[in-house]
Parts: sequence; C-alpha cells; structure tokens
Amino acid sequence: MDAVDAPDSFVIGVDYGTLSGRAVVVRVRDGKELGSGVYDYPHAVVTDVLPEDVAGRGADGQAVRLPGEWALQVPNDYRDVLRHAVPAALAEAGIDPAAVVGIATDFTACTMVPVTSDGTPLSELDRFRNRPHAYVKLWRHHAAQPQADRINRLAAERGEDWLPRYGGLISSEWEFAKGLQLLEEDPEAYAEMDHWVEAADWIVWQLCGRYVRNACTAGYKGIYQDGRYPSEDFLAALNPQFKDFVSAKLEHTIGRLGDAAGYLTAEAAAWSGLPEGIAVAVGNVDAHVTAPAAKAVDPGQLVAIMGTSTCHVMNGAELREVPGMCGVVDGGIVDGLWGYEAGQSGVGDIFGWFTKYGVPPEYHRAAREAGLGIHEYLTELASRQAIGQHGLIALDWHSGNRSVLVDHELSGIVVGQTLATKPEDTYRALLEATAFGTRTIVDAFREAGVPVKEFIVAGGLLKNPLLMQIYADATGLQLSTIGSAQGPALGSAIHAAVAAGKYADIREAAAAMGSERGEVYTPIPENVAAYGELFQEYKTLHDYFGRGSNDVMHRLKAIQRRAAGAVLPGTTAGSTVRATAEVSA
Amino acid sequence: MDAVDAPDSFVIGVDYGTLSGRAVVVRVRDGKELGSGVYDYPHAVVTDVLPEDVAGRGADGQAVRLPGEWALQVPNDYRDVLRHAVPAALAEAGIDPAAVVGIATDFTACTMVPVTSDGTPLSELDRFRNRPHAYVKLWRHHAAQPQADRINRLAAERGEDWLPRYGGLISSEWEFAKGLQLLEEDPEAYAEMDHWVEAADWIVWQLCGRYVRNACTAGYKGIYQDGRYPSEDFLAALNPQFKDFVSAKLEHTIGRLGDAAGYLTAEAAAWSGLPEGIAVAVGNVDAHVTAPAAKAVDPGQLVAIMGTSTCHVMNGAELREVPGMCGVVDGGIVDGLWGYEAGQSGVGDIFGWFTKYGVPPEYHRAAREAGLGIHEYLTELASRQAIGQHGLIALDWHSGNRSVLVDHELSGIVVGQTLATKPEDTYRALLEATAFGTRTIVDAFREAGVPVKEFIVAGGLLKNPLLMQIYADATGLQLSTIGSAQGPALGSAIHAAVAAGKYADIREAAAAMGSERGEVYTPIPENVAAYGELFQEYKTLHDYFGRGSNDVMHRLKAIQRRAAGAVLPGTTAGSTVRATAEVSA
Repeated sequence: MDAVDAPDSFVIGVDYGTLSGRAVVVRVRDGKELGSGVYDYPHAVVTDVLPEDVAGRGADGQAVRLPGEWALQVPNDYRDVLRHAVPAALAEAGIDPAAVVGIATDFTACTMVPVTSDGTPLSELDRFRNRPHAYVKLWRHHAAQPQADRINRLAAERGEDWLPRYGGLISSEWEFAKGLQLLEEDPEAYAEMDHWVEAADWIVWQLCGRYVRNACTAGYKGIYQDGRYPSEDFLAALNPQFKDFVSAKLEHTIGRLGDAAGYLTAEAAAWSGLPEGIAVAVGNVDAHVTAPAAKAVDPGQLVAIMGTSTCHVMNGAELREVPGMCGVVDGGIVDGLWGYEAGQSGVGDIFGWFTKYGVPPEYHRAAREAGLGIHEYLTELASRQAIGQHGLIALDWHSGNRSVLVDHELSGIVVGQTLATKPEDTYRALLEATAFGTRTIVDAFREAGVPVKEFIVAGGLLKNPLLMQIYADATGLQLSTIGSAQGPALGSAIHAAVAAGKYADIREAAAAMGSERGEVYTPIPENVAAYGELFQEYKTLHDYFGRGSNDVMHRLKAIQRRAAGAVLPGTTAGSTVRATAEVSA
Repeated sequence: MDAVDAPDSFVIGVDYGTLSGRAVVVRVRDGKELGSGVYDYPHAVVTDVLPEDVAGRGADGQAVRLPGEWALQVPNDYRDVLRHAVPAALAEAGIDPAAVVGIATDFTACTMVPVTSDGTPLSELDRFRNRPHAYVKLWRHHAAQPQADRINRLAAERGEDWLPRYGGLISSEWEFAKGLQLLEEDPEAYAEMDHWVEAADWIVWQLCGRYVRNACTAGYKGIYQDGRYPSEDFLAALNPQFKDFVSAKLEHTIGRLGDAAGYLTAEAAAWSGLPEGIAVAVGNVDAHVTAPAAKAVDPGQLVAIMGTSTCHVMNGAELREVPGMCGVVDGGIVDGLWGYEAGQSGVGDIFGWFTKYGVPPEYHRAAREAGLGIHEYLTELASRQAIGQHGLIALDWHSGNRSVLVDHELSGIVVGQTLATKPEDTYRALLEATAFGTRTIVDAFREAGVPVKEFIVAGGLLKNPLLMQIYADATGLQLSTIGSAQGPALGSAIHAAVAAGKYADIREAAAAMGSERGEVYTPIPENVAAYGELFQEYKTLHDYFGRGSNDVMHRLKAIQRRAAGAVLPGTTAGSTVRATAEVSA
C-alpha cells in the first residue's frame, strides 16, 4: 500500500436495504468513497396484493391479496440493483472498472428466499408466481408469530441450550418460524423448495454462482450455535413434517465473514459492468458490517444502525446471556469477540408512518413554503419544545418489539393526547419513544453484566440532530455519528477488500478504511434528569402492556384477524368483511 | 288553540352553543319550525391569546397569552347572535314579528360571566379588558382543576351532604371551582365583580334587564340543593377570602323553568327586531331544554345531546345517588321528577381535533373529489370495516372525563396502532371510544338502580348513521334521533310558549310542540356481542388509567405545566421554554 506509484485498486460495497440498494466505490488503500449509486426496488415492500406484473392474477381474476402482517419482496429487484446502482457508482467515481478487485454485499436480515437447487426463486417459476409463499419473506414479515410462539414454548419446555443465546426468545422474523409457516400454510411450495436461503446469501449466489451460508446470519437468525442447529427431535416435536428441515432445506457450507465465497460470474459481470472473476465476499448483514465501517469493534462500543428499524451490534469480551437480545454469536462481528445483537423493529418506519398518515395539509404546505421536508419541518417545530411540554408518552411498538420483549404482536400506543395536541407533539413523542426503546436495551446489557461505554450511530436517521440529542439525553451516553454517509456499504467494501486479499483481516482493513466520526452529542445533565423521569413512565407502560399485566394488544390482534376473516391467497379481503352500518329505520 | 280563525302566534328559541348561536321561529299551536338563523361567534373559543380587537395588548406590547387549559369567550358575541341570527330567522320564517309572543334561550353550562352590579362584564371595562380572568369562562375551561380537587377533598372529609348528589365529585367546570380560581389568581377582578353569573342568565338579563338565576344551573352547577348552597364554614375552610362567595357573588332570586324572568327591553327589541314587552323565559341549559323538544320527559328516556361534547339528561321517578353523575336535581328538567345529568366532555371535539390535525392531504383531496366533507369521507371508509378490524382501542378523554370519573386531568389514548393503521381506523376507534363512554354512563345508572330504557339523540352528530349504529350496538339500547334539526332551540321555544302563558306547563307544551322521532337504530345482536368484547378492553383501560392504578396522565400534565413554565397573563410562553437541541460538536 505504501508504493506511491502503485496504481490504486478499488472495491465495491453494496448495501441492500428495505426499500433500495446502494452501491459505493471505495479506494482500498484508505477507504475513500469515490462514487455511489442508489436504486429503489421497483416493487418496494409488498404488503397488500402481489404485484400483477410478476404475479399475474389469482384464480378469481383478482390481484392476490395478502393478510395483515405479511411483507414480501420480489427477488429480481435485487438483481436490478446490480444492473443500475453499481454502474451508476462506477460512473460517478470515474474510475476504470478494471481496477476493481472485489465486491461484497450486506443485506437486511432475516430475509428469506425459497429457491430450487440452482438458486431460482420459487416466485420465478410459472406454477408458483401467484402464490404468496413463493416470494421473499422480508425481515419485517410478521405473520409467523404463531409458529415463533410454538418454537419458544417447546424450546423452553425442553430446556434447549441454544435458547438463552437469543435472550430466551426466537423471533417470528427468523428462519425457523418463517420456514415452519411456509411448511404449514403452503406444503406444496415447501416441498418444491430445495434451499431456504438468506437473501444475504442468495445475492452472493447470483454474483458468484455458489451457495455459501454466511456465519453471521447462520448464527444470529439460523440458530447455528457451537457448530450445531436445533435437533431433529425438537423439529419433529414442532411438526413431524418439519423433522428434516435443517438437513433438507437449511444445512450448507458455512462461510467465514471476510472470506471470498467465490468469483464474479460472466453473467453478473455483464449486469454490473465489473470485471469477471473478481472476489465476491461471503454475505453479511447491514448492521454487522457497519461496526468496522465505524471503527467500532472494541467491547462496549454500541453501534446502532438507525433507519426504518434499528439494529444494535456490539462486541463483548465474554459470553453473557442478556434477556431479549436478538443473539450472541462467537465471531459474529469480528473474530475473537462475542458479537451481540439487539434491535428495534420500528424506528424510522414509525416516523414515516406518522408523516404519511398523521400530518394535515397545512403542515405539508408550510414545510414546502419553508423549503423543508416534512420530517425536517416537524423536527424544527418539535425542537422548540422543552422536554415533557407535549404531555405525551408513546410506546414505539408500531412494528412490534424486537428487543427486549421479542413480541411482534405488540403494537403502538400514545398516551396523553388532548384537543391541544399538535402533530409536532406526537412526532416528538414518537422520536422519544424510540430513544426510550434504545435505553431499555442499554439497561438490559448492563444488568446482564455487559458494559456499554459509547454509542455510535450510523444509518439515515443520524441526519436529525434533535433525534441524536434526544438519544444522548435519554441514554446518558456520549453519542457520535459515523462520518460516512454510506456506513453499511462502506462496511461491505471493507469486507470486499479482505476477501480480495488486500488486508489480513477485518480489524486491519477497518483501521485503514473505516470512517472517522462525524458529529458528537454529549448528554446535557438537566435533559438527562428530565428524560429519566419520563423514562420511568415509559418503563411502567412497557411492562404493563409488554409483560402480561394487560395483554390487550395481543387480544386486539386476535380480534382483528377474526374480524378481517382468514384471507387466503386468491381471495379478496372485502368478501369476508361483514357490513356494520345498516340503518334499520 | 282550537279557534281555526285565531291568528297564529309564534315564539323564538335561541340556542347558544360553543361556537355559534342559532335562533328558530316556532308556531305556538303545533311546534312547526318556520325559519332559523345561525351566527358564528366572531371570537369563537379563546384558547391561546386574548383577541386584540377587544383586549388590546399586554404591558409588554404583545397579545396576552393564556395557559394550556383555558377556554374563554367574549360576551358581546352573544349579543351579536340577537342582532344577526334572530332577524335572519324572522326573515326566513316570513312572519310578522308582531305575532311573536315570547323568547327563550338555552346556553352551554357551566359558562360563567363576572359582571358588575348592572350586568356589565368585567371584560368590557377598560381597566380589565386585557386580563384573562375578566372574560367569560366557557364550560370547557379546565384550568380550575386544582381548585376542584380541593373542593372535593374537603367536602369528602367533612361529609358534606350535597356531595353525593353530584356523584361524589364537583367538576372543575362549575361555578365554585371557577370562582375560586378567579379569587386566587386575580383577586382584583374578583373584588370588582358584583355577580358571578351563568351565561344562561346573563343573556336573559340582557334581554329583559333583570337578573334571575335559573333553577337548572343553580342546581346542577351551583350546588344549590334543597334550598341551600354550601355553608360559609365550608367556603372559609377552602380559603378564608372565599367565605362570603355565596352571599356576595352568587345568591340571587331563583327562577323556575318555564316562568317568565321579565319582558323584552326596548334595547333588546331594537337588536333583535322583536316586539318590546314580550315574555322572556328564565334561562336554561341546552341539554335540559332538549328533553321536552324530543318528547322524552318520562323516566328511563335517556336524551343525549351530542355535539362538541355530549350531555345526557334523563328523568327518574326516585332520587338515587349515581357515582360520577354531573348531578340530580328535583325538577331539574320538568316538575315532579328527579332530573339526572351526566356528560362526556369531549365527543365531536375529539373527532374535529382528529380531522384538523391527524388526516393527511390525500384524504382531504379524495374527500373533495368525492364531494364529501372530511368527516363524511372518513365515516364512509370506516363504515366498510368489520367491528374490531382496525385493531384499536381508544379512551375518549382528550378533553378530560366528565362522567363517570369527573377528572379533567385525564387525557386521550390510542392503543394498537401499527404501520398499517390508517386514518379511518383511528377515526372509527375514536367514534367507538365515545360510544363506550356512553355505555359506561348507562351502566352506572343501572348499577345505581336508575332504569335506562331508551336512548334518544339530539345534536349535530345525529347526522352520522355509522356513529348512531355504533352507539346502538355499543349500548344495546334502541336509539332514535330527534326529528327536529334544531332540538335545543325548539326546546327553548317550548319554554318561551310556557313563559308567554300559552300552555300550562312544559309537559303540556312538549306534547303539543315537541318533535316527532327521526331515524330509529336497532341494536344488531352480533354487533352487540362484538362490542361487548371490545368494551371489556375499554373498561380495563378506563379503570387502569382512570382509577389510580397508573396515574401517568396526571403526572404527564404536571410535567407539562412545569416544562411550559408558569405562563402568566402578559408573558409569552416562548420565553420560558428552554432549548433542547444543541449539537455540541
């Protein structure tokens, strides 16, 4: 790296998010980001009906409807990112593509693709294209909660030794719950499926033509601990047909993070404009690649990737069992340390939902007139308030609760609204609720003996200084933001450089290529005290609604499902809804 | 009345609501409504700053700001109703004003005016015009809660015998709490005040030049029971300066409902275009005059006047003590029966707040394109849902709770929102919450041994058939709406006819002039069952947040007041707000 005349080499990092993929071109010797490109998935998140352009229509001639908690994606949207975002990044960087030596990707997780033996998604088979279970189940697909509940009950009864590694609860978002739902609701699709593949690994398969399971999702989402998956005994007790799930659908070569899974195929080279044969790194997860991108791989450095949801990753020197964590995996972030993961299933998503559905025309107009986005405008209004002035407390469970309750049947709540409550009040209360959610996670780490010393934020939400100060004040931790605007993509690029053999390991690559810090937010003592008082209210409500004192949220979801009727693939929801408003006079 | 050739005579009823006054011209012999006129109060409800056109500016040159729970009105707006709405109604009726024999008015209550000995409101004195306490305190002024709490504590300690008549709690909305706040926060204005007058009586004073306290508000709001007010001992124990409140500011001739308080003055005749010297009835309350207008004066006929808030009135044959009622008054509605009153402090107000602040531009656009108002549009969307399909439960306490908790420090709550929750879902949940609030009141009556047999609805909200069916289903009661669009104004007209000597009493006048029923809504058994299940959830949350298990709403209000600073008349709220969002890097 020190030969001044040596031509520079470059790597590509591609970050697959919930709504788009972004590619970045990074210089190997110093991590400089030279160009980037973003591509929005044409089908975004599929929640209401299967898109007709790929799925056609159901047997009844109507678009195929999905039940309430479903969230699917269309796999070809991921290939399109390679076709559009990578060339755009190369063009912006203005480099010779021949100087690119490797590519790595990171993905949302747990996002699962059912595929045939050659990696073809079932949804791309004509016979299956109008069946919801043939599609990608996005991380936030929450319809497998009944299966997750059974997994958790059985594992607790049997005292399965892997359970405490996941804070005592397996999420409905993960491989086993989603796989069991697939088996039980569409056994034909399940039978047709040869592999149940993390999207993180499927995209690598598309790039290099080889299926390698990455160690990160295998550990965090696939219940792969100490070299083993859950036993056939356990699986058979869940459902006799599920007995061989691991051996038939899941088990496969495990690849170490930073290793090369293979080399770019001619086809993928043609899509992306990259040289055939360059190193393709083992797949990885957005959050986990961000820790090295932020140079935050030491124990106690809590990295939060704050976007639609928040993922928290942190290394610890020792193995501890932390209630409600997503998981702890040996070498899950970097070799030699225990990688802890926690998460909040709705953060930016909640703010987005609120601005989409809860803000009146005058506010949108005023924002436009001020030349601001609606989030910026509400933030500006909210930042003028003293802490507690809005009189509200919210629970940030609009997309369920990942840590520490691991319960996607929970839902959102706002307490304290009056006729004087304005949109900026509720908006601020929602910002604060997510900060209290993070505080709950920090407290859980500490109570389990895992120190948290520092808070580093990556992801789109770091742009909001009010939100960042609220997080610093609500947690009492010094908060800094990552300097790079492309944290995960940079982290992937670091992995690409290691896969291409340019650095010995992730730590060395992170030291050379990782981003410097951006802004620093220091807790303000009087604000910490004010939020301490409000956090007690949050905690009381959190425990009341989340720990069984009042299971109203679960009951409301059950009533809701019953009221909406069992909406089966190919039927329309409308036909099962009974009318209520007949005037009898 | 039976002489076919006798020329018809007419009466005027004027209904003073929260935002406007409406006058109606009614034929004495059969109650036919011949014309009406509405006049919006120019200053509406004053909640943020005193209007500069009447109050000028404060000492600091700024508009005078009001603290959070204040709600004032400008008394001349009420006179303007006589100047505009009455002539408009006469013009529409096309009758000769000389044929009008009487006028009666009904008013929101408890709405209080501080006046000098000749009835001049303090706010019309130059020295007091920029002082908030000189203005009319509208019924929904909720800033006297600390005073109400002290009244209730002391009355309970001393075992005051009037307390059970008010369900065990005196409201912060009523004469004593508001009067004590006036004394304690602006002793100069209190000293200047010669009478503390219900607006219901003040407008009659304007019409006939005589101050007569009506028996209805004296009983329901003025703690006048069995010919006595609370004792000087009791008042002195609240505050030594308050000892002579009754004798110095309150006590006055009591007028019976339907009697003439006096005769129209020349000045009021000039305002209104009515003949000088016609009968002016004793003042009354909007809800209470509506029972005769709906021909619903028999025991067990619960009449709900549903507008911005809901007032429930019902006659009972016997005196019972019903927890959380507003009051029970002998002859409070008609002679010879016990008149019960209950209420919900926010109903249409809550729906209005939601459509003002919580509905996005696309919905407003779609409503416009469909030629619908936003309420109609949301109702249309909400009516397509099955019961429980939205997955939500709300508490309808955005304006506090009148019955049965009598606590204006309570606030609203919505449980169950997810990223899929749409505005029509929350809107429907708010409609339902108010229906559950009514069910809570019906249950309280029944548990205390007061039968409820039938439910009759008057007021603006009867236009919404979805809402009416929800109320029928949530209460299990057959619901009918009043046929007249002008229930309270018609009720006032009935009182005017009695005051003018055209009928012997209210019952006789109601039989001749009262309105036939409009729509009838019969409970649908499966809906009753579905709402029964949701009501249990409402009740659990109602008791948890409303009966002391978790006093978070009270604490949030206390934090809110502290955070906003004590905003004194003439100071600006902004100056007491500390900034929170400084980026320290």
